[in-house]
Amino acid sequence: MPIADSVRLGEGVQIFHPALVNLYGCAVGDGTKIGAFVEIQKNAEVGKRCKISSHSFVCEGVTIEDDVFVGHGVMFINDKYPRATAGGKLQTEDDWTVVATVVKQGASIGSGAVILCGVVIGRDALVGAGAVVTRDVPDGARVAGVPARLMARAGASSGPEPRTR
Amino acid sequence: MPIADSVRLGEGVQIFHPALVNLYGCAVGDGTKIGAFVEIQKNAEVGKRCKISSHSFVCEGVTIEDDVFVGHGVMFINDKYPRATAGGKLQTEDDWTVVATVVKQGASIGSGAVILCGVVIGRDALVGAGAVVTRDVPDGARVAGVPARLMARAGASSGPEPRTR
Amino acid sequence: MPIADSVRLGEGVQIFHPALVNLYGCAVGDGTKIGAFVEIQKNAEVGKRCKISSHSFVCEGVTIEDDVFVGHGVMFINDKYPRATAGGKLQTEDDWTVVATVVKQGASIGSGAVILCGVVIGRDALVGAGAVVTRDVPDGARVAGVPARLMARAGASSGPEPRTR
Repeated sequence: MPIADSVRLGEGVQIFHPALVNLYGCAVGDGTKIGAFVEIQKNAEVGKRCKISSHSFVCEGVTIEDDVFVGHGVMFINDKYPRATAGGKLQTEDDWTVVATVVKQGASIGSGAVILCGVVIGRDALVGAGAVVTRDVPDGARVAGVPARLMARAGASSGPEPRTR
Repeated sequence: MPIADSVRLGEGVQIFHPALVNLYGCAVGDGTKIGAFVEIQKNAEVGKRCKISSHSFVCEGVTIEDDVFVGHGVMFINDKYPRATAGGKLQTEDDWTVVATVVKQGASIGSGAVILCGVVIGRDALVGAGAVVTRDVPDGARVAGVPARLMARAGASSGPEPRTR
Repeated sequence: MPIADSVRLGEGVQIFHPALVNLYGCAVGDGTKIGAFVEIQKNAEVGKRCKISSHSFVCEGVTIEDDVFVGHGVMFINDKYPRATAGGKLQTEDDWTVVATVVKQGASIGSGAVILCGVVIGRDALVGAGAVVTRDVPDGARVAGVPARLMARAGASSGPEPRTR
C-alpha cells in the first residue's frame, strides 16, 4: 500500500524503507534514492539519479528532472489559494487547478525549503536550507531566505549563504 | 496502535494510511481527511470537513474549527519556553502549561507554516506557505513571512504573497 | 528494521512508535524520548534525558548533548553544497565531507527550525520555532528568525520572540 501499484519505478531505484513512504501514481527514474517518510503524489515525475531525502513531499504537478538533490523536509505546493471546502462541501479535484512546478537538471534544494507553485528552479541552481521560493530561480543561481533572494548568479563563487544536504 | 482507541472519529473521516499516522486522544469531525505522516495529540480538536495534509503535527491545546485547510508539514506549538528537563529530570506534564491555539472556521494554513502557541487564526484567514505565525491573524486576513505579516485584510483582493495547498 | 541493530540505546529510552521511526547506527542516551516519524542517522549522538519530537531529522555528524529539547519537524544538515550526482553518477559517501554540528547541554530547539551544518548551539540556548540557524548560538542566548538573530543574551529576561515546544 505505501508503494501503490500505480507507481512507475525505473531500474535500480532505492527506497530504503518501503513501509515508511507513501508513493502513488508517480514516476521515478533509474537509480534514484528515496528516504523515509517521503510522499510523492500522482502525476509527479522524478528523474534519474535524484535523491529525495527523508520527510519531503512532492505533490501532483511537480516535475523533477535528472540529477536533482531534494533535501529533508522539503515541501512542494500546487495550489495558490487552498481551501478545505467549496460551497459547504469538501473540495474535490474539480475545484482546483494544479499549478505546475519544474526543478531543472542538477539543481539542489536545501532541507526545510518550501517551493511555491508555478516556479521553475533552474539547472544546477541551489536553494538554501529553509528558503521559501516564491519566484523562478535562474540557472546556476543560488537563493536563500524568506522569501528566497538571489545570493549569487551562475559562475559566481562562494559566499556565506545557507545551503544544505 | 497508530490510531489509538482514545481517538473520537466522526462519520466519514478519511485516513488514507492508518498505518502511517499517529493519532491519540484527539477528536476529528465528520468528513475530515487526514494524510500520511500526521500526528494529532490528545486534547486536540479537529472540526468537520477539514483537510489535514501529510507531515503535519497538531498538538495538545489546538482547536481547529470546521472547513479548515492545513497544508503539508505544518507545525503547531503549545509551549513558549520548552525544556527537556526540569531539576535534572525529564519534564513531565506537571512542568508546563499548555498554551491554547485556535484556527477559526474556513481558514487555510499553507505548507511548511509554523504556528506559535497562544494565537487565534481568524475565520477564512490565509496563512502563507512557510510563514511563522507569532500573533493573531484577523478574520479574512492574509499573512506571510517570518514572522508573519499582514499582506491583505478581509475583502482586499489578490497580491503576490506566497500561499499554498 | 525501523530501529536497526546498529543503534545503541541507553537505559529507559522511550520510543513511542518503534514502527514509525527510522534509526540506524546512532547512539541514544539513557532516558531520552523519541517521537514518531523521527529519523536519526548513523554517527549521530543523542545524549541523556533529551526529547526528540516527532517529524525531526538528526543527521550524521550531529552531536546532541544531555537534556536537550528538539521540537517537532526540526531539520539538521551536514553538507553545505549538496548535489545528487558527481561526474554523472550518484554521489557516494566519498564525495562529501560531513560537517559537524553540536547542540550543548540543556539547549532547546523550537519546532520547524533548520540548523545549518558546522554550528555550535550553546548550553541552555533557545532557538525559536521556524528559525534558520546559520552561525553559532552563544551559551544561554535566544535566537529567532531567518537567518536566526540574537534576541537575548544569557541572563537577559523575556521578550516577544517566537519560541516553542
